[in-house]
Amino acid sequence: MKVLVLNCGSSSIKYKLFDMTSGEVMAQGGIEKIGLPGAFLKLTDKDGKKVVLEKEIPGHKEGIEFILSILTDKTYGCIKEYTEIDAVGHRVVHGGEKFASSVKIDQDVINKVIECSDLAPLHNPANLKGIDAMEALIPGIPQVAVFDTAFHQTMPSKAYMYGLPYEMYTKYGVRRYGFHGTSHRYVSRRACEILGVPYEEQKIITAHVGNGGSIAAVDHGKCVDTSMGLTPVEGLLMGTRCGDVDAGALSFIMDKEGMDGAGLSDLINKKSGVAGLSGISSDMREIEAAVAAGNERAIMALDVYNYRIKKYIGAYAAAMGGCDILVWTGGVGENQWATRRVVCEDMEYMGMKIDVQKNEGMRGEEMVISTPDSKVTIIVVPTDEEFMIAADTMDILDK
Amino acid sequence: MKVLVLNCGSSSIKYKLFDMTSGEVMAQGGIEKIGLPGAFLKLTDKDGKKVVLEKEIPGHKEGIEFILSILTDKTYGCIKEYTEIDAVGHRVVHGGEKFASSVKIDQDVINKVIECSDLAPLHNPANLKGIDAMEALIPGIPQVAVFDTAFHQTMPSKAYMYGLPYEMYTKYGVRRYGFHGTSHRYVSRRACEILGVPYEEQKIITAHVGNGGSIAAVDHGKCVDTSMGLTPVEGLLMGTRCGDVDAGALSFIMDKEGMDGAGLSDLINKKSGVAGLSGISSDMREIEAAVAAGNERAIMALDVYNYRIKKYIGAYAAAMGGCDILVWTGGVGENQWATRRVVCEDMEYMGMKIDVQKNEGMRGEEMVISTPDSKVTIIVVPTDEEFMIAADTMDILDK
Repeated sequence: MKVLVLNCGSSSIKYKLFDMTSGEVMAQGGIEKIGLPGAFLKLTDKDGKKVVLEKEIPGHKEGIEFILSILTDKTYGCIKEYTEIDAVGHRVVHGGEKFASSVKIDQDVINKVIECSDLAPLHNPANLKGIDAMEALIPGIPQVAVFDTAFHQTMPSKAYMYGLPYEMYTKYGVRRYGFHGTSHRYVSRRACEILGVPYEEQKIITAHVGNGGSIAAVDHGKCVDTSMGLTPVEGLLMGTRCGDVDAGALSFIMDKEGMDGAGLSDLINKKSGVAGLSGISSDMREIEAAVAAGNERAIMALDVYNYRIKKYIGAYAAAMGGCDILVWTGGVGENQWATRRVVCEDMEYMGMKIDVQKNEGMRGEEMVISTPDSKVTIIVVPTDEEFMIAADTMDILDK
Repeated sequence: MKVLVLNCGSSSIKYKLFDMTSGEVMAQGGIEKIGLPGAFLKLTDKDGKKVVLEKEIPGHKEGIEFILSILTDKTYGCIKEYTEIDAVGHRVVHGGEKFASSVKIDQDVINKVIECSDLAPLHNPANLKGIDAMEALIPGIPQVAVFDTAFHQTMPSKAYMYGLPYEMYTKYGVRRYGFHGTSHRYVSRRACEILGVPYEEQKIITAHVGNGGSIAAVDHGKCVDTSMGLTPVEGLLMGTRCGDVDAGALSFIMDKEGMDGAGLSDLINKKSGVAGLSGISSDMREIEAAVAAGNERAIMALDVYNYRIKKYIGAYAAAMGGCDILVWTGGVGENQWATRRVVCEDMEYMGMKIDVQKNEGMRGEEMVISTPDSKVTIIVVPTDEEFMIAADTMDILDK
């Protein structure tokens, strides 16, 4: 069975074609700058080389048409006909309270995704464009929607309700939804597979950290809390997003700067985080380099970044009454071993002991990095959201 | 030595007169509605009876004059002359980064308190009115300022910096300051006195919870983190304040409701918290009654209230690499044993075991409520900020 996974943004489309019989990735790449000058498709060819193909791409339909033509291209392709693609799996950002799992797409699903667009005005409409374009190009092809928010729908109300007037929830759906759900689900399950332990019996904390980042508490197979909220602004310090902040500080700043709601949104989404605090970069690799060079604000920004992760791990251990497995993933979680060390050190009180030697220098591999006598198993699991989307697509169509 | 402790609000003054030789409270009461119709002074007389004395009180000076006349009154008084008062200790709300401990008040201190007024525009000016009035009434009397924020000044930057643009800190002083510092200091020290352990060697979490509330992490005698921030809005769920909330949710609501910064401030300070979530009351006793009657939104609000405390305890244990002592104080911490139980249960992973029997029904006493084999000692310590202010005042004048 061949599954095409699509992740459609407002001006981009990422794709990966899986042969789900072998689990192999047959083709992968992405389109950038849809509707803009300089649009291009970048793919990784069979020898692992990056190829860039420039082309005018006015809309998502033309973009997906271009992807299909490349998948069947004599030089770059891997299939002969479109019809070899059995199904399409889409990343859809916001499923609100309507979707607690992946679903086969029909008109009812499309309508519900439209209803959730209010909660993700930049993302859901782009996801829908991809779904529509695919149906137009290969009418009747089975399509599945996999939601970023779905895994977190098992949270209890004590974790998802804010301390705001209840009407904000009933009128506008203001509550914690969480994001990166597909990643948290994938790495928590994969960690249990690797360790050979039953998923439904573990208390797992998943740290998906990178430029964006969130932590989740997965108790006996169900997400019970996560650090991102109604929006991806809440929680950890991120590249340009502020994460947790005093709401009173925001109204204070608005007053001082004569700022309106749109200005606030810009401040907390685009001018804050590691970039705003350090004044250097939103990229954690550049921050690490500046730290190595002794830059004080970079050191402070990295300290805040690491400290927030540590506090969330502590909070979620309390939420679950302990922790059996801590999973690191995401750009930083998989690669920046110094962050893993700083966060995991001095956590013996909760039975967590990192193996400093094993951890040091380890990047991008599935590996246990706790000591044999650590009660909490610390494990790095590179995330694979696309594989999870393809697997969900296959599972749903097999039913 | 007799110390008068004053806590001046914009239209109220609370007072307590201590004989610091014996530690005894000689007189206590408060004035309400200064400058408003129906102003009155309410005191507790020698037999413990409440007495209300109505009087027109146009300003703070007249208010303090009234208090002094009552202290020397033949029926209600306890001293013969004003001059028996050796010193005055004032609660001052915001010391910004200028005050890390209590200080004797002089013109330089007054100027600095004025400079901090921007951070507490409702409180610092009222505190200053009390200081000025006292000097006018008893010229030259030694006065001491005890700041709500001072105890938290030992926090490291990783705990006090927000993920906002660095300029917000340099231009406006936007950072975490924390409040209830006098209470956190008092109960953490008092807990060690009761337990007979050295304060400078403990990892202590202090839970000052009530209608307002904050948690602090006190590591080897120094505050290293606290849940309130630039303002008292951040952290726990409170009576009408929202506590922790997604910043992105706030700009979302502002957009939906056409709300400006002032509207936001009103929403998060006055319409949120337990009151906003439950729709019932900001008073936790009324919430408990509604929970007992099966009200679903009250149950949810109480669950959120308790869950946030639990998560902060977990986060601060991680911040300190463990916890030796958990101190409960404040209206709820001292009295609502059900909250103490729910928060402390299932915390064996960090060595915390509550003695359910001892805890049940226990209100307002100094008492250890953990089991003998609990690694974390859980203790209730009724707070006494006024005593701490009087003690600071005496210590500073003794120097």
